[in-house]
Amino acid sequence: MAPGDRIETRVDSAGRLPVCRRRRPDGFWLDDLAEGLTFRIGAYEVTAAEVKDFATRYDPQPFHLDEDAAGDTLFDGLAASGRHTAAITMRLLTSAFPIAAGVIGSAIHLEWPSPTRPGDDLRLEISVGTIAHSTSRPGRGSVTLTYDTINQHGEVWQRTTGRVIAWQRPAAESAAATGGK
Amino acid sequence: MAPGDRIETRVDSAGRLPVCRRRRPDGFWLDDLAEGLTFRIGAYEVTAAEVKDFATRYDPQPFHLDEDAAGDTLFDGLAASGRHTAAITMRLLTSAFPIAAGVIGSAIHLEWPSPTRPGDDLRLEISVGTIAHSTSRPGRGSVTLTYDTINQHGEVWQRTTGRVIAWQRPAAESAAATGGK
Repeated sequence: MAPGDRIETRVDSAGRLPVCRRRRPDGFWLDDLAEGLTFRIGAYEVTAAEVKDFATRYDPQPFHLDEDAAGDTLFDGLAASGRHTAAITMRLLTSAFPIAAGVIGSAIHLEWPSPTRPGDDLRLEISVGTIAHSTSRPGRGSVTLTYDTINQHGEVWQRTTGRVIAWQRPAAESAAATGGK
Repeated sequence: MAPGDRIETRVDSAGRLPVCRRRRPDGFWLDDLAEGLTFRIGAYEVTAAEVKDFATRYDPQPFHLDEDAAGDTLFDGLAASGRHTAAITMRLLTSAFPIAAGVIGSAIHLEWPSPTRPGDDLRLEISVGTIAHSTSRPGRGSVTLTYDTINQHGEVWQRTTGRVIAWQRPAAESAAATGGK
């Protein structure tokens, strides 16, 4: 892979995405990522039932709970909680952007230009930004990722920016990957 | 209320928090908030079952799904997804920090110094920051909030910073609140 490459990764719809294993044999190591790489992954279909279910548990406000009540608010109709969009985004990221030892970050910035709506079929556009190798922890680094959560019409409902941890490929796996050379 | 005031708001544990109504009659209007006010609200007890349930749907990684597998990871034991901590935080905020027309924001910054664990009893420490009155939309403004999600031992598991929309109290309600004077 080279900077600027675009990789299309298609996964199944929501319920059928594969669950992460302890280590993704096909996962990315630090060595596999480079600034400028982009990925497009998806999709996840959002239903009114899931919007209401998430909101009932975590964001019980009328514009997330009930079509009629939502029509009378700033959102002018049922809209998903921003935290719900963030959760679905994480589902897509962990299921289809397999960093070998896990997607682990300690801070993110989230922007919601407009809310997710029932019927949206969400996917992610991921861009790899700067890569920093740790000086205190050899073999470890952090990678800046920006990922837009977009619907089937290309409308951006969430932009996330954050850094994730990545490890260099272990020597044994590197040898295996190059046929032992 | 005056800047620097500290208001203790206690709510019931998770399952028994009241669901938001269309407009909170007891809710905050822009006029009720002032830079420097702080609030402490809670609590929400996090169980291993909920940690795994959320992760199964939205962040299916081994350190969020299974105690044994989690012991073998950077987290050294079962840990809640950061998006789960964010969702619980929103539950606490919307249930016990009642902005009259809803808690609505378009961007947040999240930091997770360390993950939430099963058994944590989460609460929020909210600080009101700058308040900006809209020049283009009279009667409307935005309020910067910083809210720390802490456990029963005072350990901070998440810090959130963001702006929310607030409206000035409608004239009719102002009149009612002051006895029509």
